[in-house]
Amino acid sequence: MNTHFKFTEGGLSAVKGIKTAGVHAGIKKHKKDIAIIYSEKVAAAAGVFTLNKVKAAPLLISEEHLDASGGFCRAVVVNSGNANACTGSVGLANARAMGLAVAEALELAEEEVLVSSTGVIGVQLPMDLMISGIKKACEALSAGSSADAAEAIMTTDTYPKEAAVETVIDGKTVKIGGIAKGSGMIHPNMATMLGFTVTDLATTPVMLKEVLKEVADETFNMISVDGDTSTNDMLVILANGEAGNRKITEKDANYYAFKEALHALCRKLSELIVRDGEGATKFVTVKVINAPTVEDARKAARSITTSALVKTAIFGEDANWGRVIAAVGNSGAHFDPERIDMYMESAGGKEQMMQQGMGLAFSEETAKKILSEKDIIFVVDLQLGSAAATAWTCDFSYDYVKINADYRS
Amino acid sequence: MNTHFKFTEGGLSAVKGIKTAGVHAGIKKHKKDIAIIYSEKVAAAAGVFTLNKVKAAPLLISEEHLDASGGFCRAVVVNSGNANACTGSVGLANARAMGLAVAEALELAEEEVLVSSTGVIGVQLPMDLMISGIKKACEALSAGSSADAAEAIMTTDTYPKEAAVETVIDGKTVKIGGIAKGSGMIHPNMATMLGFTVTDLATTPVMLKEVLKEVADETFNMISVDGDTSTNDMLVILANGEAGNRKITEKDANYYAFKEALHALCRKLSELIVRDGEGATKFVTVKVINAPTVEDARKAARSITTSALVKTAIFGEDANWGRVIAAVGNSGAHFDPERIDMYMESAGGKEQMMQQGMGLAFSEETAKKILSEKDIIFVVDLQLGSAAATAWTCDFSYDYVKINADYRS
Repeated sequence: MNTHFKFTEGGLSAVKGIKTAGVHAGIKKHKKDIAIIYSEKVAAAAGVFTLNKVKAAPLLISEEHLDASGGFCRAVVVNSGNANACTGSVGLANARAMGLAVAEALELAEEEVLVSSTGVIGVQLPMDLMISGIKKACEALSAGSSADAAEAIMTTDTYPKEAAVETVIDGKTVKIGGIAKGSGMIHPNMATMLGFTVTDLATTPVMLKEVLKEVADETFNMISVDGDTSTNDMLVILANGEAGNRKITEKDANYYAFKEALHALCRKLSELIVRDGEGATKFVTVKVINAPTVEDARKAARSITTSALVKTAIFGEDANWGRVIAAVGNSGAHFDPERIDMYMESAGGKEQMMQQGMGLAFSEETAKKILSEKDIIFVVDLQLGSAAATAWTCDFSYDYVKINADYRS
Repeated sequence: MNTHFKFTEGGLSAVKGIKTAGVHAGIKKHKKDIAIIYSEKVAAAAGVFTLNKVKAAPLLISEEHLDASGGFCRAVVVNSGNANACTGSVGLANARAMGLAVAEALELAEEEVLVSSTGVIGVQLPMDLMISGIKKACEALSAGSSADAAEAIMTTDTYPKEAAVETVIDGKTVKIGGIAKGSGMIHPNMATMLGFTVTDLATTPVMLKEVLKEVADETFNMISVDGDTSTNDMLVILANGEAGNRKITEKDANYYAFKEALHALCRKLSELIVRDGEGATKFVTVKVINAPTVEDARKAARSITTSALVKTAIFGEDANWGRVIAAVGNSGAHFDPERIDMYMESAGGKEQMMQQGMGLAFSEETAKKILSEKDIIFVVDLQLGSAAATAWTCDFSYDYVKINADYRS
């Protein structure tokens, strides 16, 4: 593949016409807790939302607004510290009020504002703090403050997550910027995280939704920290058209050029989320190759990345490839147990552990070297087709348990 | 329900005509590692086996033998320390040789012996030690040594697991005894553990298989320690007819009386497995009630018991009911998020956390009292039908990570 894109600086602020803010409203004790992303022009917009059947109020409002506006948007408001989930009709009214407060402050239509929340479930939002915080954030909007927004959406994240890429489409430089948060509750099926991206590409809401869905399935939906899908996950993109390219209206070469750049951005944000997984000490890439279908490859890869037994073995630097194969066996993927090969590799070396379904007498010394690295790759070769998929995860450490044993208190 | 059964002593040895042995063959360094269960008469036999697509060699041989014998059996041989999984054609030949060694020593037909293994994956069995150990075990067979067999099938289990019940069927006293092993890799879908049960009931292989499957779905398949299904799980029952009841050949009242007693036995063995889960400090019962179907209730209950976030919160004694509800949302069960109620209870009290999909302002003090107990019950009321299911799990502790980080080394 020719890579036409390159990574740049600035996160959301890399894109012309986008202003951001991140402020402390008092929902969290001391840290920033409200972010606003604002587009000076009307932007085409699309989102993908959690598959958890229990959907938080802000997601319902955002979906409603995207429907009502026909896929156009001017602003996104996000709070951390409170998820506004399992909060009934009061929660729904509060999510709507968050959007309205932004619309009033920035003189927008109600449906031009998307709403997002993350934090503790089942507690009503402190609306007085929220409304005053939103006013403060709207006043603070500026062109270079992506880092403030990235900070304001954090929960147990230990660092803010930003990325930006640029590419050339139709002779024009197109930029894409994004921020994300993750940490706990990270698992396939709509991201299980928050991701907000902006671009100056000119395109339609329909194309934007299509490309966002395709890229999410290959990136955010292929990462796992602990196998739980949250009630609040969402990934959003706004496209303001400032790049001046001929508007993309079909899946042509320009569409795929943009997809490649958006994939790189989302891949980067996903990686930042996994590396910051609660208690993570390792970054593990799982490649399943030569599968009958992409769906089989994805199932097998995701089953490995969600296995507690695999993840604790990685923490222990134990070459327990049997657990990897058992996870493939549990995945529901179509494969032949007697054809499967398996390798582990890293900067420390490469070793084949399994050939045609049988364990090999591998070098424990090499295995130890491979697994002592921070970045590790598992390759599972199903030898039953030509489809492939990659998934990413971290290890399961003492600290994962510690962090999650007392998150709420 | 009238409970006609009662718990008794003796494990497998409670049943007349059953002899057992557990010896040290040298597959493990110091501990007992070969168990044999022997029926003096030909017994009707049935088994349920792992749903993992990677099936260990002994399971393939046991299924083959049950087919060949038409569901009759005289002996079961089990080794711990080596799973004989991912061992190819050599492993298959070794599993067959294990059965043959028993058949020769006890003068049985090859297909009258079932074979089972548990331990590390991908390493060939040390067949010299195995064959001499099997001879030793066959010589050691006796009527009162169920505890030796229970000990010989342990891996990371911290105590042997035995139970026995008796009931009255057709005017005759019927006894059932069992042993089990669990600890790591315990998860729904065929037990993910080893369980061996014997009874003096007179019945057919067809009825035996039916009742074993029904009971496994309500007991062993509803427990979870870490969400991974192993390559070696099996649950077996032998019925030698010594009780002298009129042979059960259909699902009549006698069938259900037996099922009730077998359920109690398997429920007890399952509980012993969960209580001994790797690193477990709590025993959690999850009841999902008023579901549209039993399948919905099971899905919801099992999703809660396999959530790492729920299990770490329990370890931390944190009343994080939001994670419980998020797990129901991820389960694929049919339910209405706006009808769901949720309670936590224990000897420390009872508290409703959620009503019709909304969080309640519950007493943190009572919640703390409830969760400080060792035995905790979660009740999720879907208010959308009349079906129910119960699942059991333990918490996710530091020790779980510690044990699994260096199991193989």
